[in-house]
Amino acid sequence: MQQSTTSHQVRRGHIILEEQGLRDGLQMLPQPVPTEIKLEWISSLVRAGLKRLQIAAFVHPGLLPQMADAEIIFRALEQQPGVVYSALALNHKGVERAVASGVRHLAISLSASNTHSLKNTRMDIETAKADFVRNVKLARKNNIVVRSGIQCAFGCRYEGAIPRERVYDLVRHHLDSGVEEIALADSTGMANPWQVREMMEEVLALCGQVPVALHLHNTENKGLANVFAAMDAGIRQFDTAFGGLGGCPFIRSATGNIATEDTAHMLHQAGFTTGIDISGVAKVSIAAAGWLGHPLPGMLYPLVAKDN
Amino acid sequence: MQQSTTSHQVRRGHIILEEQGLRDGLQMLPQPVPTEIKLEWISSLVRAGLKRLQIAAFVHPGLLPQMADAEIIFRALEQQPGVVYSALALNHKGVERAVASGVRHLAISLSASNTHSLKNTRMDIETAKADFVRNVKLARKNNIVVRSGIQCAFGCRYEGAIPRERVYDLVRHHLDSGVEEIALADSTGMANPWQVREMMEEVLALCGQVPVALHLHNTENKGLANVFAAMDAGIRQFDTAFGGLGGCPFIRSATGNIATEDTAHMLHQAGFTTGIDISGVAKVSIAAAGWLGHPLPGMLYPLVAKDN
Repeated sequence: MQQSTTSHQVRRGHIILEEQGLRDGLQMLPQPVPTEIKLEWISSLVRAGLKRLQIAAFVHPGLLPQMADAEIIFRALEQQPGVVYSALALNHKGVERAVASGVRHLAISLSASNTHSLKNTRMDIETAKADFVRNVKLARKNNIVVRSGIQCAFGCRYEGAIPRERVYDLVRHHLDSGVEEIALADSTGMANPWQVREMMEEVLALCGQVPVALHLHNTENKGLANVFAAMDAGIRQFDTAFGGLGGCPFIRSATGNIATEDTAHMLHQAGFTTGIDISGVAKVSIAAAGWLGHPLPGMLYPLVAKDN
Repeated sequence: MQQSTTSHQVRRGHIILEEQGLRDGLQMLPQPVPTEIKLEWISSLVRAGLKRLQIAAFVHPGLLPQMADAEIIFRALEQQPGVVYSALALNHKGVERAVASGVRHLAISLSASNTHSLKNTRMDIETAKADFVRNVKLARKNNIVVRSGIQCAFGCRYEGAIPRERVYDLVRHHLDSGVEEIALADSTGMANPWQVREMMEEVLALCGQVPVALHLHNTENKGLANVFAAMDAGIRQFDTAFGGLGGCPFIRSATGNIATEDTAHMLHQAGFTTGIDISGVAKVSIAAAGWLGHPLPGMLYPLVAKDN
């Protein structure tokens, strides 16, 4: 890929991309991906420079069969120096399974939408908050580093707008629970960049030294606009998925996370570093598209493939 | 479509979207679209609230057969109060044809990339600048409102980075030629939002009261990020194409302009107005996708279709 950089280019700092293709990217796909294929993709992504990868979810295997091999994945993983593997848990049972599997980094999420919370976990927000405290305690007692997540922080398909104060209250609640990092999720892709910039400024002010990440979906084509807006506010950490893997392959517009390659490319063009080899990631996207039998939503990986 | 607006939403002003699907969107498509279909799409787009539409190019019909009906289109157009129809011309012959067709608004472009200029018009930049002056004179003598365009203003696939000073020199040259409006084009989709914000601030400072528009492609998924960045700089006018029509249907990643619906939706979410009925535009995109036999790159129109 060519760079559009000019003599005005400056080095602007390092941005952390957490690869979530193996978790958020895969979870809704109808074809179960065999564990050995997942392990291959993970190891190629690590070779391409990714240092943080969320690779499994300890959720009910009946609800998300694609994630049923969480224990097997963590047992089979080759640890690499400087590489952090994490998993997602949504309830106490999930945290117990993560503890038993020797997970060292765990994401524990709840939703800022009451309707979404009830549908997803059968708990209203207040119940989910109490449960969250219990879950974080269990994880921390086992020396697990906890990253908390707030789903639907920028809007909900059921409820529409989510009051910002509710999101900020959840941020304060998570900080009080002693989490090591907080991620806000635009689960629906409804966030707009003006909203993101304003809200992330407020959240960063609340969080002080606790790192804040942003988890974005490109459902309405605003994914990279929201990255740029969040960076204006001071965010330096984003969740991405190789090839933008995710969503439902039968609904073209139901896309996944922002694509790792697309995000890294935009950042590199502007002089930021990510440590990621875009063409290495693109090779995984090409392999995954081939294996799944349909193109992925990311836009960079076919361009990179054409260049090679 | 749901809005992710919250109580923080404010009215932020009106944004002009110039619909270019009929020109930039169609010009590379291999199937010639019959004139009567084009006229149908134009009239539906006008009913959906679009007030500025670039609908034809007076270029060599052998090179762009899709644009061969430019004269016929302008003869057949139903004029509507408040609606501006424009065309593109790249050389003297094109301007002569536009004059003969009674065109009232004309875009006249040249490229900031010498290699692209030579390939596209067989003129180097200096020759193209002299030719441009002659063409603008002819148009203005015939009371045509001229919008100038600078192609490859943010990068070129042949040359890579384009020095910013070269772009600013062209802007000054266009202002000296007496054009009524200037459009900078990211013809390749290589622009990144940091670059766009910095450059558009400089260009707006140069242009004073002369309106400046931005013509963006979503080739590298940064289209709406660049809209947001340009708006930060003060730009209030963008070229878009219904459904993101454009590029080549056989290369998934070679997409067209930013999509009218996607752009309007992001702006509406943040409290800006465009006067555009998104679902009305989406209906044209659905009709066009059906007629062409493949989905368009825009991401909003299938969501809107699902909602209806």
